[in-house]
Amino acid sequence: MTEHTVKSYGDELSHLTAEVARMGGLAEAQVADAVECIARRDAPLAQQVVSRDERLDALQGEIERKAFRLIALRQPMAVDLRHAVAALKISMSLERCGDMAKNIGKRALILTDAEPMTALTRSIERMGKLVQGRLKDVLDAYSASDLDRAITVWARDEDVDEHYNAIFRELLTYMMGDPRTINACAHLLFVAKNLERIGDHATNIAEIIHFEITGEEIVSKRPKLDTPR
Amino acid sequence: MTEHTVKSYGDELSHLTAEVARMGGLAEAQVADAVECIARRDAPLAQQVVSRDERLDALQGEIERKAFRLIALRQPMAVDLRHAVAALKISMSLERCGDMAKNIGKRALILTDAEPMTALTRSIERMGKLVQGRLKDVLDAYSASDLDRAITVWARDEDVDEHYNAIFRELLTYMMGDPRTINACAHLLFVAKNLERIGDHATNIAEIIHFEITGEEIVSKRPKLDTPR
Repeated sequence: MTEHTVKSYGDELSHLTAEVARMGGLAEAQVADAVECIARRDAPLAQQVVSRDERLDALQGEIERKAFRLIALRQPMAVDLRHAVAALKISMSLERCGDMAKNIGKRALILTDAEPMTALTRSIERMGKLVQGRLKDVLDAYSASDLDRAITVWARDEDVDEHYNAIFRELLTYMMGDPRTINACAHLLFVAKNLERIGDHATNIAEIIHFEITGEEIVSKRPKLDTPR
Repeated sequence: MTEHTVKSYGDELSHLTAEVARMGGLAEAQVADAVECIARRDAPLAQQVVSRDERLDALQGEIERKAFRLIALRQPMAVDLRHAVAALKISMSLERCGDMAKNIGKRALILTDAEPMTALTRSIERMGKLVQGRLKDVLDAYSASDLDRAITVWARDEDVDEHYNAIFRELLTYMMGDPRTINACAHLLFVAKNLERIGDHATNIAEIIHFEITGEEIVSKRPKLDTPR
């Protein structure tokens, strides 16, 4: 009860932003480790990725409570409201990135029991690094309130889609060539899909930052590859 | 500027709740049609599902703006704040159900060009009906503020997981038996995954309703099938 009467509104808001940035760092690490445990067939690391996801969930819950309380008690207007809403929405997006990293970790645990498929794993690793880079860039843009940087991430969405589509085709070819790999390949298909979705969240975060800074939705729709794979 | 000073807080809130219910009806219809176009190989319906998704996105944007404005301007406390937050969060969940229905629609368009796979499609249809039923029940629970009904939906999460796991195995067996079906089966795999995720959103909405009504998180963690498929 006393905390928010003592602290200034600006203090509370910057505390919230810092927590989102911290959550971003954790989500980034989870995604990096998830990619790593697929690439290195590292079961203990995969286990860590799975169990560490709870921390992201807890942080998200905390940020959500604080953001709603801030909005309800402080009656922020215009740009201040946008800051609080952005913190809330970015934390939701990061929580979902964490869920995907956890899912990749679980699949990595299954895949360590299967035959290594080096070429495929390399492609996934490359896509993973790309997605990681996008997440890092958009979180940098958030911390620095850097609109140009956010727009750059937003505009490069198609790179991830192209990687994903190439991996989809590669996986199907692999399965057709050797049906014994079908089970493992199905898991890799979902790993690739999870990475694509993390990439979509980076794009989504870029859109949130754009609205936070400018008060306007980012320009219409990007040309999206229209065929789902 | 005048609207919210003239209208009572209760009016604004019930208007918001009604909009979420309306959005729920649309999302339900989208999910039903998505399942239908897979089951009946109905390309024109699939096209409609894809193009109608925009309406859900627009409604979600509107509900979000109104909910944040309500929270920021009216300073609701305790249960009133929970109502507004629930409306906002449920609309976010419904928007994502819509995205999944749209994705199923896109895949249905691809699948109408492939050989029919009747047994598989039947399994998907059954899972689809189950998921539809869960979404319907949880939206009924929301409209009626019916805690017991929400808890019933929440508790039956595993049925969907079991269906999904059975379909996963069925699809893999099919692919191994006839590698020419691998492409179509990969799309059906994602259709089943999308349905599973809609089921997860129904669970998530049940959790939101529980918190809205009681102010408490629903009891700890359900026993979840731990192996991702």
